[in-house]
Amino acid sequence: MKTELCRKLGIDLPIFAFTHCRDVVVEVSKAGGIGVFGAVGLSPEMLKVELDWIDAHIGDKPYGLDIVIPARYEGHGEMDPEKLEAQLKSMVPDGHYAFADQLLAERGVPELPEQNGARLLSWNEAVATQMVDLALERPNCRLVANALGTPPKAIVDRIQQSGRLVGALCGRVKQVKAHRDAGLDFIIAQGGEGGGHTGDIGSIVFWPQAVDAAGDTPVLAAGGIGSGRQMLAAMAMGVQGVWTGSLWLTVEEAHAQPAQKQSYFDATSEDTVRSRSWTGKPCRMVKNAWTEAWENKDTPEPLPMPLQGLVSYNAMIRTDRYAGTGECQEVAFNPAGQVIGQINHVESSRNLISRLLVEYVEALEHVNAMNDY
Amino acid sequence: MKTELCRKLGIDLPIFAFTHCRDVVVEVSKAGGIGVFGAVGLSPEMLKVELDWIDAHIGDKPYGLDIVIPARYEGHGEMDPEKLEAQLKSMVPDGHYAFADQLLAERGVPELPEQNGARLLSWNEAVATQMVDLALERPNCRLVANALGTPPKAIVDRIQQSGRLVGALCGRVKQVKAHRDAGLDFIIAQGGEGGGHTGDIGSIVFWPQAVDAAGDTPVLAAGGIGSGRQMLAAMAMGVQGVWTGSLWLTVEEAHAQPAQKQSYFDATSEDTVRSRSWTGKPCRMVKNAWTEAWENKDTPEPLPMPLQGLVSYNAMIRTDRYAGTGECQEVAFNPAGQVIGQINHVESSRNLISRLLVEYVEALEHVNAMNDY
Repeated sequence: MKTELCRKLGIDLPIFAFTHCRDVVVEVSKAGGIGVFGAVGLSPEMLKVELDWIDAHIGDKPYGLDIVIPARYEGHGEMDPEKLEAQLKSMVPDGHYAFADQLLAERGVPELPEQNGARLLSWNEAVATQMVDLALERPNCRLVANALGTPPKAIVDRIQQSGRLVGALCGRVKQVKAHRDAGLDFIIAQGGEGGGHTGDIGSIVFWPQAVDAAGDTPVLAAGGIGSGRQMLAAMAMGVQGVWTGSLWLTVEEAHAQPAQKQSYFDATSEDTVRSRSWTGKPCRMVKNAWTEAWENKDTPEPLPMPLQGLVSYNAMIRTDRYAGTGECQEVAFNPAGQVIGQINHVESSRNLISRLLVEYVEALEHVNAMNDY
Repeated sequence: MKTELCRKLGIDLPIFAFTHCRDVVVEVSKAGGIGVFGAVGLSPEMLKVELDWIDAHIGDKPYGLDIVIPARYEGHGEMDPEKLEAQLKSMVPDGHYAFADQLLAERGVPELPEQNGARLLSWNEAVATQMVDLALERPNCRLVANALGTPPKAIVDRIQQSGRLVGALCGRVKQVKAHRDAGLDFIIAQGGEGGGHTGDIGSIVFWPQAVDAAGDTPVLAAGGIGSGRQMLAAMAMGVQGVWTGSLWLTVEEAHAQPAQKQSYFDATSEDTVRSRSWTGKPCRMVKNAWTEAWENKDTPEPLPMPLQGLVSYNAMIRTDRYAGTGECQEVAFNPAGQVIGQINHVESSRNLISRLLVEYVEALEHVNAMNDY
C-alpha cells in the first residue's frame, strides 16, 4: 500500500500519526509510518527540547512537525511576539478569567504553586515561524503541516526550499482548492467526526470530494480512522495515506496520565462535542462540565482565537498536572474524534500499527471475496 | 458483491434505494437493486394507489415499504386515528400556524385554492399499521423498514409471519442493539451526514461499530453514499448493502419539479442542516430561509413530533405544488444528505446503478493495485 507520497517521505506505510508525545513520534516512525509532532501549546524553547530528544532517538527515520497558523485570528500580522502578547491580553474581559477559575475551583482542581500568568500561545504566525525554523535545522524532520488554513507564502517557500514537504488540514472543498492553489505538497482532508479543530462535513462525503478537488496534489484522509477497515475505506477513495490522531492518545508510549487515558476509554462516540470553549474555534473534544458551562446563555461567550486560549491556558496546565485529582476530568481539555468510542484499552504503538495492517488486509480480502464478477 | 441479504430478497445488487417516487422504485428494482417506497406523508388511501401502480409495473421484481413509527411521539399509544388527530390538534399553539403562514406569504408562495386543514400525518403507529397491512397484501413487497426506532413487536411479528423481512434505521450503537434484540431481520446504520431523520455520529465511525454490535443481524450502510467509491468504503466495513436516499432525488424518473431538482443541484455539502423545523425531530435538509427562521431565539420553537408536522403540513403541500413560484424554494422542505453536494445533473436510475458498479469496481481495482504485499 505504498503511495507516491510514502516514496517522497521515505516511509513504508501511509500512516501519519499526529501526537503531542515525542515517544509516540519515534515509535510510529520506527514501525514504518511517520510520527508528526504537534507543537501547539509549547514555546519555541520547549519545542527545541522535544525535537532534540526525537533526533536523539529516531535513528535514520523521518518525522514531521505540526504547527497552527490560523488563516484568521485576532492580532493577525503582528510579528513581534511581545507586542502581540500585550495587544491580545488587553482584549480579554476580566470576567472570562474569573469564570474559568471558578469552574476549576468548583471541581476541586488545585491551584498552581507558582505564579503562572496566561502565556502567549503558539497559535500565530510570529511564534510558528520560529518553530518552523527550529524544524528546518533538523535533517530528519521531513514535513511540516499547518492545522488551520493555508500557511503564509513565506513559510511555504521556506519549507519547500529546504527540501521538505509542506501540507495543511482542511474541512471544506473551498479550502482544498486554496491549499492546492498555494502549491502545497499534500492536503489533509478532515471530516467533521475528527478530533481537534474540525468542520462539519462527514469524512465519507468529504474525502472523495477533496481527492477530486485537489487535482495532482496528494490527499491524506483524516477524521474517523481507528481501524484497518476504516483505513481501507479511506484508501478506496483515492487518498495517499491516513492522518490519525485519536488512535495515539492512549497508546503505551503516550505520556497522558492514567485518569486522562481513562476519560478517553470511558467516552463513547456520542460523548464528543465541537466546542469553542478552549481555543476559540470549533474543536472536537470529550464533552464534560467545562464544555457545557461555556454553552449556557447566561455565561460568558467563548472569545475568538487566540483570546480564548489565553483564558483557558491556566486551566490546561492545571487539569494536565492534576489530572487525577478531584473531578478534574470534568473540566479538562481532552480533544478527540468520535472514533474515540472504539478505543478502550492500552496497546503499544507498534502493536497498533500491526493491527491496522492486519485489519486492512482482512477487509480487503473480505471485499475481494464478496466480488463474484 | 451479492450478499446473504441479497439472496434472501432475491436481488442481484446490494443497493437499496429509498424514494418517494413509485417510478424510481420500479426502475431500481428492474435494474437489479431494490426500490423502497417511502410512505410518510401519504394517507393509507393514497398509499394504496401508489402500491397498485408499482405492482402493475414492477413485473416479478421485489420492492419494499418504508414507514415511520417513532419510538417516542406525542399521542403515543392512541390507536384510533380520529381521536389521535383531535388530541394532537388541540396541542398546537395558534402562533405556530400563523408564523408558518407568514413565512410562506413573505416569499410569495400562493395559497391553496381549496380548503386544506392540517391533516393527520402518518408518523404514528395507528396509521402505519394500516400501511403495513396494505403492504402485506402484495406478494412483491418483500421488506418493511421503519425510519425511526424499533417497530412495535406486534408489527414485527406480523411482517415476519407473512414471510417478509423487517428492518429499521438507527444512528447510535444503543439503537443497533435494541433492533438486534427485537429480532429484526436487518439494521440500517445511518451516519449523521445522511438526509432525513438522522443522528450525529459520522458514517465512517458508526458503520463498523454497528456491524460489530449487530452480531449476526445484517447491517446496511446509510449516510453519505453517492458513488461507487463510497459504496466500496461501506462494503469494506462488513455491511451487507447500501441504503441510499439523496441519490434518487434528482434522477430522470423522480417526479420532483424542475425548481426542486435545481435546489438540490445548487446545494453544496455545506448547504445542509439538521433541523427540527419540519417534523419536530432532527432531520437533515437543504438549509434555507425556513430552516433559519425556526432557529431564531425570538420565533416559535419547533414542537415535538408529530405536532410540528401538523404545523408544517400546509407548507409542504404549498411549496411542493408551487415549487417554481416566487422564492418558494427558500421555504420548501428539501430533505437531503451532505452527499447532495456531489449530485449535479439528471441521470436515469438505470445509468446511475451502472455508474455505481463501474466506480465500485474501479475503486476495488485501485486498492488492489496499491497493495504490494
